Amino acid sequence: MIQKHIIHRLIQSALEEDVGTGDITTTAALTGAEVGRAKVFAKSNIVVAGIDVFREVFLILDKSIQFSGHCEDGRTVKKGGLLAEISGNLGSILTAERVALNFFQRMCGIATLTRQYVDEIKGTKAKILDTRKTMPGLRCIDKYAVKIGGGTNHRYGLYDGVLIKDNHIAAAGGISKTLARVRGHIPHTLKVEVEVKNLQEVEEAIISGADLIMLDNMTNEDMKKAVAIVNGKVPLEASGNVTLANVRKIAETGVDFISVGALTHSVPASDISLKIE
Amino acid sequence: MIQKHIIHRLIQSALEEDVGTGDITTTAALTGAEVGRAKVFAKSNIVVAGIDVFREVFLILDKSIQFSGHCEDGRTVKKGGLLAEISGNLGSILTAERVALNFFQRMCGIATLTRQYVDEIKGTKAKILDTRKTMPGLRCIDKYAVKIGGGTNHRYGLYDGVLIKDNHIAAAGGISKTLARVRGHIPHTLKVEVEVKNLQEVEEAIISGADLIMLDNMTNEDMKKAVAIVNGKVPLEASGNVTLANVRKIAETGVDFISVGALTHSVPASDISLKIE
Amino acid sequence: MIQKHIIHRLIQSALEEDVGTGDITTTAALTGAEVGRAKVFAKSNIVVAGIDVFREVFLILDKSIQFSGHCEDGRTVKKGGLLAEISGNLGSILTAERVALNFFQRMCGIATLTRQYVDEIKGTKAKILDTRKTMPGLRCIDKYAVKIGGGTNHRYGLYDGVLIKDNHIAAAGGISKTLARVRGHIPHTLKVEVEVKNLQEVEEAIISGADLIMLDNMTNEDMKKAVAIVNGKVPLEASGNVTLANVRKIAETGVDFISVGALTHSVPASDISLKIE
Amino acid sequence: MIQKHIIHRLIQSALEEDVGTGDITTTAALTGAEVGRAKVFAKSNIVVAGIDVFREVFLILDKSIQFSGHCEDGRTVKKGGLLAEISGNLGSILTAERVALNFFQRMCGIATLTRQYVDEIKGTKAKILDTRKTMPGLRCIDKYAVKIGGGTNHRYGLYDGVLIKDNHIAAAGGISKTLARVRGHIPHTLKVEVEVKNLQEVEEAIISGADLIMLDNMTNEDMKKAVAIVNGKVPLEASGNVTLANVRKIAETGVDFISVGALTHSVPASDISLKIE
Amino acid sequence: MIQKHIIHRLIQSALEEDVGTGDITTTAALTGAEVGRAKVFAKSNIVVAGIDVFREVFLILDKSIQFSGHCEDGRTVKKGGLLAEISGNLGSILTAERVALNFFQRMCGIATLTRQYVDEIKGTKAKILDTRKTMPGLRCIDKYAVKIGGGTNHRYGLYDGVLIKDNHIAAAGGISKTLARVRGHIPHTLKVEVEVKNLQEVEEAIISGADLIMLDNMTNEDMKKAVAIVNGKVPLEASGNVTLANVRKIAETGVDFISVGALTHSVPASDISLKIE
Amino acid sequence: MIQKHIIHRLIQSALEEDVGTGDITTTAALTGAEVGRAKVFAKSNIVVAGIDVFREVFLILDKSIQFSGHCEDGRTVKKGGLLAEISGNLGSILTAERVALNFFQRMCGIATLTRQYVDEIKGTKAKILDTRKTMPGLRCIDKYAVKIGGGTNHRYGLYDGVLIKDNHIAAAGGISKTLARVRGHIPHTLKVEVEVKNLQEVEEAIISGADLIMLDNMTNEDMKKAVAIVNGKVPLEASGNVTLANVRKIAETGVDFISVGALTHSVPASDISLKIE
Repeated sequence: MIQKHIIHRLIQSALEEDVGTGDITTTAALTGAEVGRAKVFAKSNIVVAGIDVFREVFLILDKSIQFSGHCEDGRTVKKGGLLAEISGNLGSILTAERVALNFFQRMCGIATLTRQYVDEIKGTKAKILDTRKTMPGLRCIDKYAVKIGGGTNHRYGLYDGVLIKDNHIAAAGGISKTLARVRGHIPHTLKVEVEVKNLQEVEEAIISGADLIMLDNMTNEDMKKAVAIVNGKVPLEASGNVTLANVRKIAETGVDFISVGALTHSVPASDISLKIE
Repeated sequence: MIQKHIIHRLIQSALEEDVGTGDITTTAALTGAEVGRAKVFAKSNIVVAGIDVFREVFLILDKSIQFSGHCEDGRTVKKGGLLAEISGNLGSILTAERVALNFFQRMCGIATLTRQYVDEIKGTKAKILDTRKTMPGLRCIDKYAVKIGGGTNHRYGLYDGVLIKDNHIAAAGGISKTLARVRGHIPHTLKVEVEVKNLQEVEEAIISGADLIMLDNMTNEDMKKAVAIVNGKVPLEASGNVTLANVRKIAETGVDFISVGALTHSVPASDISLKIE
Repeated sequence: MIQKHIIHRLIQSALEEDVGTGDITTTAALTGAEVGRAKVFAKSNIVVAGIDVFREVFLILDKSIQFSGHCEDGRTVKKGGLLAEISGNLGSILTAERVALNFFQRMCGIATLTRQYVDEIKGTKAKILDTRKTMPGLRCIDKYAVKIGGGTNHRYGLYDGVLIKDNHIAAAGGISKTLARVRGHIPHTLKVEVEVKNLQEVEEAIISGADLIMLDNMTNEDMKKAVAIVNGKVPLEASGNVTLANVRKIAETGVDFISVGALTHSVPASDISLKIE
Repeated sequence: MIQKHIIHRLIQSALEEDVGTGDITTTAALTGAEVGRAKVFAKSNIVVAGIDVFREVFLILDKSIQFSGHCEDGRTVKKGGLLAEISGNLGSILTAERVALNFFQRMCGIATLTRQYVDEIKGTKAKILDTRKTMPGLRCIDKYAVKIGGGTNHRYGLYDGVLIKDNHIAAAGGISKTLARVRGHIPHTLKVEVEVKNLQEVEEAIISGADLIMLDNMTNEDMKKAVAIVNGKVPLEASGNVTLANVRKIAETGVDFISVGALTHSVPASDISLKIE
Repeated sequence: MIQKHIIHRLIQSALEEDVGTGDITTTAALTGAEVGRAKVFAKSNIVVAGIDVFREVFLILDKSIQFSGHCEDGRTVKKGGLLAEISGNLGSILTAERVALNFFQRMCGIATLTRQYVDEIKGTKAKILDTRKTMPGLRCIDKYAVKIGGGTNHRYGLYDGVLIKDNHIAAAGGISKTLARVRGHIPHTLKVEVEVKNLQEVEEAIISGADLIMLDNMTNEDMKKAVAIVNGKVPLEASGNVTLANVRKIAETGVDFISVGALTHSVPASDISLKIE
Repeated sequence: MIQKHIIHRLIQSALEEDVGTGDITTTAALTGAEVGRAKVFAKSNIVVAGIDVFREVFLILDKSIQFSGHCEDGRTVKKGGLLAEISGNLGSILTAERVALNFFQRMCGIATLTRQYVDEIKGTKAKILDTRKTMPGLRCIDKYAVKIGGGTNHRYGLYDGVLIKDNHIAAAGGISKTLARVRGHIPHTLKVEVEVKNLQEVEEAIISGADLIMLDNMTNEDMKKAVAIVNGKVPLEASGNVTLANVRKIAETGVDFISVGALTHSVPASDISLKIE
């Protein structure tokens, strides 16, 4: 699902960053002829994401490595569970280890956190969305991991979706004026989403023909009213200060989407370790 | 301190990732002629890091932007504090906003977390070290932010420092054998660090001539003994499961360095917002 | 409107392709010190597009060139009209000339042809659309020139619009099945367009919830019926074998859009010449 | 004949331009497991050029695709003729289709047009030449297609051939002065071509030692006289406003070469279609 | 004369190779605020080449550096002579020093050695040629330095000149057969050079219509005979084992060109030093 | 030992430099179908270095080439010895030949010269070091060849070793002040080397805690005294004007390292030839 040439380029550049002109420790400590096997374990409960990226790092460094995955993206693995076995040249495995884990631990971390949000709102109609608050250069793996965790991807960037935010409205002069202008200038294949901050703006957005409405930092009370006002005409997205503690209440207001920046800007890495047997 | 061409390349590629073939919302909503001013505020207490990177994003997108920073890297800013004012073409400011914040919020997040660790061990002789557990491709900004937060940088990558880890020892066959081999193969300008997991290995490392010793996941009790055994001959680095809750106890064992992976692999972004006036 | 770094990269690479290790004729014929002025004329009636790209080629090669444009993108210039004056180092002007004209002549060619289509359907509600049948690597300038000529841009690539074509339907098994599948997998910010080849499929597409319908190679008679069937519920796009000769009849069927591949895959270059005075 | 790394880079970049972060339609419409076969047909009479480039696009996207070509470059295929069969993953075939056709339709278009010019002057000694009026970045495929169509390639760029044009002569001050200067500065391995616009300049060029002479926009009458004056001492190239309608008359003046910019700057794409069976 | 974007890219990549993630000595030793002046001296007699490249390294690293050159390319400077003064930030000067000198010392070395060859054959009609035996990636600076030293450039690469070598003749089957084949396939703007190893082959080459003949490792006696046989019809190039000791004798055989691989494959660097005052 | 992606990139870029848009001689002289075998011989006594790089050039150009090496890096081969046999497409072999030899002749040249220095000081405890005086962009192959020749690599660049030179001391104000500053700012994993120019500075360096001392252009007499003063506390490196003629005397002073810039800045290429059978 991630474009291969993009992931290839990311791995190549991460390896260049870490290995540089050579892994001097491994080169000095080993003869280069050692072969063996490493096992990769989850050290906490995780939702697996990026096992292919993880494998690819070893293979880009050394085509002769044998990689045997013991899980698939989206699967939950308990603490202590075996994720993969890697065998072949030990020098190659040691050199690739850190870069491979840096990718994998972040991707599993994102999927695991996303799954927690998704589980939290089970039974409601709401879906968890990601945002553009991703690591610079790593958006494709961040968004992929959100999807694997059960989340829904919002637009990828500024070029493939229209989202009129408060700053646009401030700069352009009012919701209806901005929406009218935008309609005339964007491709006919795109929907238009508008950010609003109160119920009056919700009504203005509807009248102005918004296809989607983002409720920014509104109280649950007001969001319930917004749901009633909109009455199914367009989908609603809740946004702002969403946490695991408050997400269910938000979902229960009846909104269609809840976007969570923390999924990608403040996510703890999953704890995963690789051990030479 | 970060090499300019590296940061320039990172920003360029983050802008390409986000803006792609164009910011369709801004292009459609604005005429292109609007000018104005935006203010950037801290929405929580932060240690500033990366103000230059933040500014550079706007300037790379549009050379005519005026950027006026109200803080310097390393400075603490309270919730609500003004970080910068940006004036000029509003379209440019809106298009650059998210990428600029993605860099800045991460860097401040790292510096802020590092500072908490550093403050926690004040009065001991220990220093907080970073690791290679950084975001793929973003190591230079991650390590810079650690330094700004008061931390000390460990080696940059596999090419500029020697660290013999448990997996190397497993693959090569014992500490003393590995150290002897390594000595003969590395540049004479580098010190050799060895990871050990108990007191017996500490003694073996000393005898084998290690320049630095990393104590991996040892109890505070054992680390105190290690300090006594080593008796100032070589510096000691504590590593493994370090948290804000336990870091002071670790520092009080008398070790010289404490390395903390979480500084860069599990750091929450600082909350910062940009508002058009 | 074209992203600056993209156009910069295209020009740089076109210059490298043409100039390679050096313009041996100019270097040998001139001393390098000659300065003077060149005038650029339209040698047929044209709609100007890409005057900024044209200028940029000279400036990327030699910052000291003075470029004075005598027209703006979108303006019609008669045969013999003066388009620009360029003064400065004559060697630089001669070396950049061909690459600059190659870009400019294509862009004006596209805008000029687009304008002819647009003029042809004046008074109808239809809009002229471009396609993805652009020169490999030059899509941004091709689509920009269509817009300048008065055309409307369709999606930019496979990533920012959904268009279910006959081959997708063949591979996935029927219109309604395909549409249902697609709805569940795409971002909620995008509309879904479906290609149909007869009136029965038009009805199936409507029922299945298509947001846009492309009528592929249908007769004008059938397109009129499709317009009646759809009755304004979704926009219709006519496609296939559109020429200047038949475009007005197609527009008069009442469709909303007419897409024309020839605008970018079979366009004659505008005739433009540069003369040293 | 085209350098592999150049064509590889062109295809890669065309795919990135079109596919971007992913073909959302194909990914959503198909499961990813569908396999099948597509046939590629000529929809008008064409001279085939670029079948290897066409195949390479599919293979670069997906190594497992089977491509079976039914023609070779240079062969004429009648309207309706089968050009190739492609089998394997249908998703891959659909994603690669447009980029593959964009290359192939242009290359066949150029070869087909070139062949028409070549056929038109059959029996004369003249050869059809291309120019530097090619698509920016695509010169290697444009020139290759001209050769396949039976044309002869002129110099590739400014670095591998000397052509003193009217603007050089204007800037340097006269034909003989320019030729003398040039002789002293260019590699001894290159011939020198001079552009002239009347018979007097033809004589001046001969006396000044030109190796080749380009007759710019001269009447057929004058070109005949030039042929007589030159009398086989150096080859002559006719240039300017050459069309299919007038090319035979030009060839019959006895010139050695006729250069035709339209072969690459104003060529209609060949009509080719790909259908999933 | 060297294409700016090529030299810029070479310098950029040399700086990245040397400076990497930062000049740790300079950063640690200085505060970053020190300013001052450095002088650059010749420590042996040299022919200057590459002063612009030398300057550019400092400016690419730090735009604020003031560089004042005291010589021009082609000028001879005696041991002890001042070549340049550089003032500004001392940290920048120290960081750029080695890369700048690596380019400059090589270029001066080549020009100095070339000048010795040129001086050695003064009064004869022969010219000193370079070869393709240059440092991988540095051909443009190597060939430029040869020219500055008074040498003449042979073709730049395999794409801009035709040189049929013994291995081609062996593979294709004889001189006349090879020449006939080649004539039919190369652009009409290029001359054809043939390598021969005895007088019989000289005659065969003439008859077959070679434009230039390379005499490979022939005795001076035989080269004199070759000059007589050819009698001015085509230029002759002597090649193989040319040294400063034997070059004059070779020139006196009457050949037109003498190519010297050692100019670029075995050249000693000029001794140049930079001192902070 | 050289990072594969670096060497791959160097070869790719050297091939692009030399072959450009195509090897016109080989393409014209051969049909493309010729197959055969070439032998590669040493034409002087050499120490082999870079046989893998040499092979890689042929394989990057044409995967189907069979390459059979008859020697390993580090082996001495006498004049006339067979180094390798290459069989397959003759066109590919001829096109790759020059680039392959340019790399191989330089690398063997460096290894051969290094071996001479190493042999010269046999029996002493000193080791021969390289410097940063390498060809821009080719440091990895230069340093690799030194190692193969029996030399020892100094730091790779400015980022992985600390060397305080005279210019740093001049800029920062004295040895002890500089050393104190540096200690506080560099990673704890690196040793600190200081350049000194007399015995007084040797003592100052020792007192200031230098880990390594470079003796710059000191007499053998003084170097002996320095050895006595230092008395094994830190290693000493002799530097400046080292030649094959004086290197043994220097080694006999008792220094630990002798650095030789000429190994990489003034090395003659080894004479190697490739002949089609």
